[in-house]
Amino acid sequence: MLFDKETYTARRDRLKRKVKEGLILLFGNNDAPSNYPANVYKYRQDSSFLYFYGQHREGLVGVIDIDNHKEYLIGNDIDIEDIVWFGAVDSVADLAAQSGVEHSAPMSRLEELVTQARTQGRKIHFLPPYRHDQMIQLMDLTGIHPSRQREEASLELIMAVIDQRAVKTPAEIEEIERACAIGHEMHTTAMRLCRPGVSEQYIAGTISGIASAKGCMTSFPTILSMHGEIMHGYPSPRPLEDGRLMLCDAGAETNENYCSDNTRTTPINGRFTSRQRDIYSIVEACHDHVLDIARPGVKWWDVHMSVARLMTERLKELGLMKGDTEEAVRNGAHAMFFPHGLGHMMGMDVHDMEGLGQRYVGFDDEVQPSTQFGTNCLRCGRRLQEGWVMTDEPGIYFIPALIDEWKSKGIHKDFINFDLLETYKDFGGIRIEDDILITASGCRMLGHERIPYHMDDVEEFMAQRTN
Amino acid sequence: MLFDKETYTARRDRLKRKVKEGLILLFGNNDAPSNYPANVYKYRQDSSFLYFYGQHREGLVGVIDIDNHKEYLIGNDIDIEDIVWFGAVDSVADLAAQSGVEHSAPMSRLEELVTQARTQGRKIHFLPPYRHDQMIQLMDLTGIHPSRQREEASLELIMAVIDQRAVKTPAEIEEIERACAIGHEMHTTAMRLCRPGVSEQYIAGTISGIASAKGCMTSFPTILSMHGEIMHGYPSPRPLEDGRLMLCDAGAETNENYCSDNTRTTPINGRFTSRQRDIYSIVEACHDHVLDIARPGVKWWDVHMSVARLMTERLKELGLMKGDTEEAVRNGAHAMFFPHGLGHMMGMDVHDMEGLGQRYVGFDDEVQPSTQFGTNCLRCGRRLQEGWVMTDEPGIYFIPALIDEWKSKGIHKDFINFDLLETYKDFGGIRIEDDILITASGCRMLGHERIPYHMDDVEEFMAQRTN
Repeated sequence: MLFDKETYTARRDRLKRKVKEGLILLFGNNDAPSNYPANVYKYRQDSSFLYFYGQHREGLVGVIDIDNHKEYLIGNDIDIEDIVWFGAVDSVADLAAQSGVEHSAPMSRLEELVTQARTQGRKIHFLPPYRHDQMIQLMDLTGIHPSRQREEASLELIMAVIDQRAVKTPAEIEEIERACAIGHEMHTTAMRLCRPGVSEQYIAGTISGIASAKGCMTSFPTILSMHGEIMHGYPSPRPLEDGRLMLCDAGAETNENYCSDNTRTTPINGRFTSRQRDIYSIVEACHDHVLDIARPGVKWWDVHMSVARLMTERLKELGLMKGDTEEAVRNGAHAMFFPHGLGHMMGMDVHDMEGLGQRYVGFDDEVQPSTQFGTNCLRCGRRLQEGWVMTDEPGIYFIPALIDEWKSKGIHKDFINFDLLETYKDFGGIRIEDDILITASGCRMLGHERIPYHMDDVEEFMAQRTN
Repeated sequence: MLFDKETYTARRDRLKRKVKEGLILLFGNNDAPSNYPANVYKYRQDSSFLYFYGQHREGLVGVIDIDNHKEYLIGNDIDIEDIVWFGAVDSVADLAAQSGVEHSAPMSRLEELVTQARTQGRKIHFLPPYRHDQMIQLMDLTGIHPSRQREEASLELIMAVIDQRAVKTPAEIEEIERACAIGHEMHTTAMRLCRPGVSEQYIAGTISGIASAKGCMTSFPTILSMHGEIMHGYPSPRPLEDGRLMLCDAGAETNENYCSDNTRTTPINGRFTSRQRDIYSIVEACHDHVLDIARPGVKWWDVHMSVARLMTERLKELGLMKGDTEEAVRNGAHAMFFPHGLGHMMGMDVHDMEGLGQRYVGFDDEVQPSTQFGTNCLRCGRRLQEGWVMTDEPGIYFIPALIDEWKSKGIHKDFINFDLLETYKDFGGIRIEDDILITASGCRMLGHERIPYHMDDVEEFMAQRTN
């Protein structure tokens, strides 16, 4: 457990006060089968369950009966045959005591507790499930079909969880720093290995081995590709090619579920071409612009739009865009180059709390999500708060399928110079991403050691690397 | 695709002939969410789907309408927003053509096909699902609750799939050899890194990085522990200790899903103690005994029991067991030391086809599963056939919780010397595992390069390793 039981008890007390009444169910994750029931992926506890209980064991459910002031940790103990296979483990009663929960009970008790509360007409609060085994369990408990569970999840519970998890304490930031330190080793190793002839898969696999060797995992499947223009470009067996760029978007997740998430775009032969410098310098300026303007009270929506305007200005200087900057951005023309959001909240999930609903995590009555292409991928818009961790990840991409589609339909033809754009179809894409903490007066980059990203620093690193 | 479309067509034709009538549904796997819907584990196609279609794309279902001589590959094509995120991919119609399937259709067609067949009173054949998303899909299609789907799965289809997948062709053996070559690199790296002070997690993570760096994955979560007596002892952050043994059970899985599975037990300081030699030499003899007696027509049950008798004989020489060997083994007393089966079928799943039901994969009318402790973990008993791949994995363990339990209850006290056994409680466990191919006249170990396992070879390897 990362914290003491008083911390977990205090978190649950605050949750109870916010939700006010009813029965709260917090499902821990079970093992996830890969290719048959007993062959499972690396265990990954649900972040909200871990936040409120600190326990990593599979097969647990937390029950908080607000109305009757009772708390239960539900789970089945193991028997001697299990001990032969998995070793001796703490009893569920022991786990409950560690987490400051008064009662423990076997799984069979869960149905009784839920049935009783339903009979009494009390509200059953649950978070939107994303694991299908939990959907089946929830269906059996409540009669709600999996396809309706997301809409029937408790908004009170969702908002109460977001309220707490969004703001990170100094101790949580320390754990994120641990993830960033592993991420630093992953990214600098990728840059050291980057050269013509080495395969994307080899580098991506090697850096995921760095996280594994520390007993951790990557915070998401590593994106590593010469085709940076494919947002989720998974590593291929292709060898890296001289003159192209390698985009690597990767992060680590500690065993306490805290994440890092960085992207670097590295010239495969160690030196940027002049055309690559033109585009890279824009992304670099956008990345650093965020550091200047992000602070508590500022809408992340406005930070995103400010970056979009800066990018449009600079693309106009290169002749790739044209027309009025404000109008181009309002119409979404910049999304040809920057079709995703500037960044997302990060914490115990790399897209923090995304499973609870981006609508609730990143938006509010003041700032609503957009439906415009590109801006619809912005995962957060509302006013920044001290203690939030955000990613700062602008990028510029040249996506042949999108160029062809917009050109053929004449989309945003007043703002985009399609003739020049045609000549960039072999370019790929550039993204620079770091994790920033919103402080009292502004923000700061996380990670005690900086992964090189300024062009000169990147070229110097590549020239001086030893292996 | 590993094979040409004629191979996949021939496999499906054979399946149709064996199942005879009805509508066959073969579900491909979907992405498996880790901590929110969009953050997924490394994709792993279902082995039976891959065997009959050769396709790795998520979101596909194969439908074989035997009665109407029609085949469909069902799946949804992607749109431009998907292309931005995931790149351009083949259409489902293209995939169908690659696999030799005449028709393709979007997912909405699946319900029509199933409903039509059900209305006509025709049998819907499906395999027992192990992914919960498929259970929900199957429930919606057929009305069968997930808890009853395993028992309502089609025995005709299960038996027809086992019939084909059990016997490996030379081309499949080649692919298993590729997995074994990666496994060789993983295990020899683990042995090279093994020394006092290095953590279990570091070594386990590093060798899983070897599989990742080849674009592959491990065939199951690596077991690596000083506590070899815990069958599934996952690696801990503990440093390895001088004088103890490191048990490493690990394998690779190629991108075509073919597996390797080996275990080595290595003295952490490079030299076996005299007591370790006593026990290791028994396991070594049991391992090699299998190579002498496994051949087509022999029951794997008999091979297991022959190993159990040899082990009992040798443990009697050490004074750990006593009494009549035949009687001890018939009563299951050897399971104190050897509480698992001798080996399992291996192929596109590391426990091949375990999800279809061990009862059908490993047993038949002639040889039935046992309920006796230890022997109930034997995953196969029936007569070996040429072309089968089996693991040969005897082990001897000293499990404190089991020793205490049997001693206090007087279980098998006529066959076990509990006083001497008490002194072994700090020993741990030893297992040696290799993959064997049943040939026309006997068997042979797979893996072109041998991972050292004879005691002298292990000590020589450890003395001569360079890093």
